[in-house]
Amino acid sequence: MPDVKVVLVHPQNEGNIGAIARAMMNFGLSELHLVSPECEVGLEARRRAMHADKIINGAHWHETLDEALVGADMVVGTSGVKTSNEKKYPRISTTPREFAEKVKSFDGAIALLFGQEDFGLDSEAVNRCDMLVSIPTSAEYSIMNLSHAASVVFYELFLDGTEVWRSRNAGKMEIERLVKQFQNLLKETGYPAHKREKTTVMFRRIIGRAVISKWEYHTTMGVLKQALRKAQPEVKKNKRKIKKK
Amino acid sequence: MPDVKVVLVHPQNEGNIGAIARAMMNFGLSELHLVSPECEVGLEARRRAMHADKIINGAHWHETLDEALVGADMVVGTSGVKTSNEKKYPRISTTPREFAEKVKSFDGAIALLFGQEDFGLDSEAVNRCDMLVSIPTSAEYSIMNLSHAASVVFYELFLDGTEVWRSRNAGKMEIERLVKQFQNLLKETGYPAHKREKTTVMFRRIIGRAVISKWEYHTTMGVLKQALRKAQPEVKKNKRKIKKK
Repeated sequence: MPDVKVVLVHPQNEGNIGAIARAMMNFGLSELHLVSPECEVGLEARRRAMHADKIINGAHWHETLDEALVGADMVVGTSGVKTSNEKKYPRISTTPREFAEKVKSFDGAIALLFGQEDFGLDSEAVNRCDMLVSIPTSAEYSIMNLSHAASVVFYELFLDGTEVWRSRNAGKMEIERLVKQFQNLLKETGYPAHKREKTTVMFRRIIGRAVISKWEYHTTMGVLKQALRKAQPEVKKNKRKIKKK
Repeated sequence: MPDVKVVLVHPQNEGNIGAIARAMMNFGLSELHLVSPECEVGLEARRRAMHADKIINGAHWHETLDEALVGADMVVGTSGVKTSNEKKYPRISTTPREFAEKVKSFDGAIALLFGQEDFGLDSEAVNRCDMLVSIPTSAEYSIMNLSHAASVVFYELFLDGTEVWRSRNAGKMEIERLVKQFQNLLKETGYPAHKREKTTVMFRRIIGRAVISKWEYHTTMGVLKQALRKAQPEVKKNKRKIKKK
């Protein structure tokens, strides 16, 4: 994960500062910079920050944006404006996902700027940015809560920097064994012969779409084997009956 | 985008209900279900909802979870627990991105469940779910604010259902023309011949990594052409001087 410092430019709402600190800690970020907040940063901020109150306590305070950008190798702004219109060139932005991909292996400090709750970043700040990021939203109502927007951007940065937990999936060989066992079950339970092929395909498709884990493979195999054990004596009984006739 | 109804199971915080309604509208969702809230749903909820107060006003109220799930073709729970341990099988979850991919073309109603702020969904609710979703977070502090978590899940659902705005990129032919023009500039401005190849490669790489738009291509071409026009008379003057000698 790249070295990201979060810069709040003239924030107006104490609760948002706390909520953003919490989201930072949720996604492994720790360096918060505040440029002349227009609100108190007191108890309400710490209440909303929950366990991330230490991020609030350790925040860097600055008089100006220039001061906050000292040491940043890349300046990235967040914007509510979504445009690909070249007449508004300075406002053309990339998505959080593209941003996270681009900076994944960036070797330097990134200042990630968030503007005011109502107006966002002003033109001067926007023109300072090496990249702008904007979250795709519904055209009907595109203005997000500041801490929600921050969460989405932090989430994308975090995802691209970490291995996601994951169960080990069943392999191709295991899937084949499972399908084979299912076919045996159809046969041994006397399932109509002319329907067997299509039903086997259906089983294969369901298992395929579900992308089953090794554990689910073993469990499902157990279920099929058990059913087969129960079915076979019946089948043999039937065969004996047939012979007697 | 699939048909998703958001179900809040015994929510405890009015502000969160409002914040979730706002995030729903940001990401194109509109159907909110409330199962016996343990808080008021009044002014504070509407204040936090902003323009999404109509979602609060139109919310469906239920006594029990069963009642809220009537008509749902798929039940999906959100969980703060991240595990791939098969001993905790009912808690094994998928990521919001995998969830969004899986349900992209799901043809039916999905009930998306969010539990209480402190304890999440109880075991009974979890066992009712066809799929569990959990957001990858830092191990240091994994408990997210409820409306932040909801935003991330809604964002992933929205992304997979819509075309993201995008500038048209410059094509391969255009890039080649740009590189050619850059080479001309090096030559015509008397840039040292033995360095030209390496510097051209550098230019190509910068343009390549930046993934430039058609508009940026035309603008950069304009800049190079202008520089070339300025450079050529100088070059010709020099040539004339040489001839005179």
